[in-house]
Amino acid sequence: MNKILTDKVINRLTLYHSILSDYIEKEIEYISSPQIADLLHIDNTQVRKDIALLNYRGKCKVGYKVKELKLLLEDTLKFKSVKTAIIVGAGNLGMALAKYDNFEAYGFKISALFDNNPEKTGTEVNGKKVFDIKELANLTEKFNARIAILTVPRKYAQEVSNFLVDSGIKYIWNFTPCVLNVPNDVQVWNENLIGNFLQFTVNHGVDSD
Amino acid sequence: MNKILTDKVINRLTLYHSILSDYIEKEIEYISSPQIADLLHIDNTQVRKDIALLNYRGKCKVGYKVKELKLLLEDTLKFKSVKTAIIVGAGNLGMALAKYDNFEAYGFKISALFDNNPEKTGTEVNGKKVFDIKELANLTEKFNARIAILTVPRKYAQEVSNFLVDSGIKYIWNFTPCVLNVPNDVQVWNENLIGNFLQFTVNHGVDSD
Repeated sequence: MNKILTDKVINRLTLYHSILSDYIEKEIEYISSPQIADLLHIDNTQVRKDIALLNYRGKCKVGYKVKELKLLLEDTLKFKSVKTAIIVGAGNLGMALAKYDNFEAYGFKISALFDNNPEKTGTEVNGKKVFDIKELANLTEKFNARIAILTVPRKYAQEVSNFLVDSGIKYIWNFTPCVLNVPNDVQVWNENLIGNFLQFTVNHGVDSD
Repeated sequence: MNKILTDKVINRLTLYHSILSDYIEKEIEYISSPQIADLLHIDNTQVRKDIALLNYRGKCKVGYKVKELKLLLEDTLKFKSVKTAIIVGAGNLGMALAKYDNFEAYGFKISALFDNNPEKTGTEVNGKKVFDIKELANLTEKFNARIAILTVPRKYAQEVSNFLVDSGIKYIWNFTPCVLNVPNDVQVWNENLIGNFLQFTVNHGVDSD
């Protein structure tokens, strides 16, 4: 399986995985493509096409084996290869992400949080310690941290981003509404909540008030 | 301007808007497509193509007028048409979104929060009151709320979603890692953080540990 999956396909495969997890909890053995399609309000042929990309075929009339398909998705989406990240900014959003237990199931391990607020440093969130941001450069290696999740307020985003780059961070998952100016060897993934929201309202027919 | 903009284009236009806002803060009058492209580490022709969709042309050698282009983007992305929403689940994520001041600039108004925790109901977050979730059905009309942002824990997601639908909510911006089962006249927009993260790691070359 060396085909490149588009971002949209990866997005849908993750949702299929979530549905399969629910089915396993409910101890249901088989699932059909129309069942998946119905839950997501998408077209059945889309589901079949996506799953065919995994070189997996369902059984006539009963559909896909839930456990098999789930494992295959986990393999395709590389859940087994652990990616370690730190959270920078222990405000509400940083705390929410630190508490997001589902991350670990997807191969995503949050090793620590960083903040500049002395009331927060030294505390723990969901078993993860909050360190002073000043210590970051000394700790990136210890935590094997090349991915930083940036959840600081907008006005500090660029300044903190510079500091992350100087500390050896190579990937920034940016939850701030800022476009960060980083060197070419650093990759930024903009979460861009506003963009996601606007896709919803502009393209998917949310009426305004 | 009645062309349909794809989700990817909307996403990029929002990032361009963010860059333009920074330029206005810095009182810079013109911006060129290579400047935008450099900041986003994307191709210059992509930027020019996106902006051409708005029927806007830059001036030779100086580029685009920052203020004009920003207003045009706001018009295209319908920032002026106010969309009211409620937040359901006043945990860390709900609080973070309630405090996200940038939403209002994009035409997105959070009118209230709802939670079932008596320690939270009656309090205020960023000027928005937290109500008991049981009051939702009585308040949807008062708050003109047809959009709900769902930020409850995974295990309550489906149950609360049913309650939202019964209370008249028509659009759910789903931040839980659950696929919600809703009637056909209700639209769900899955924020799917895991899917976004996996796009980053699977397709954009984050090495595993």
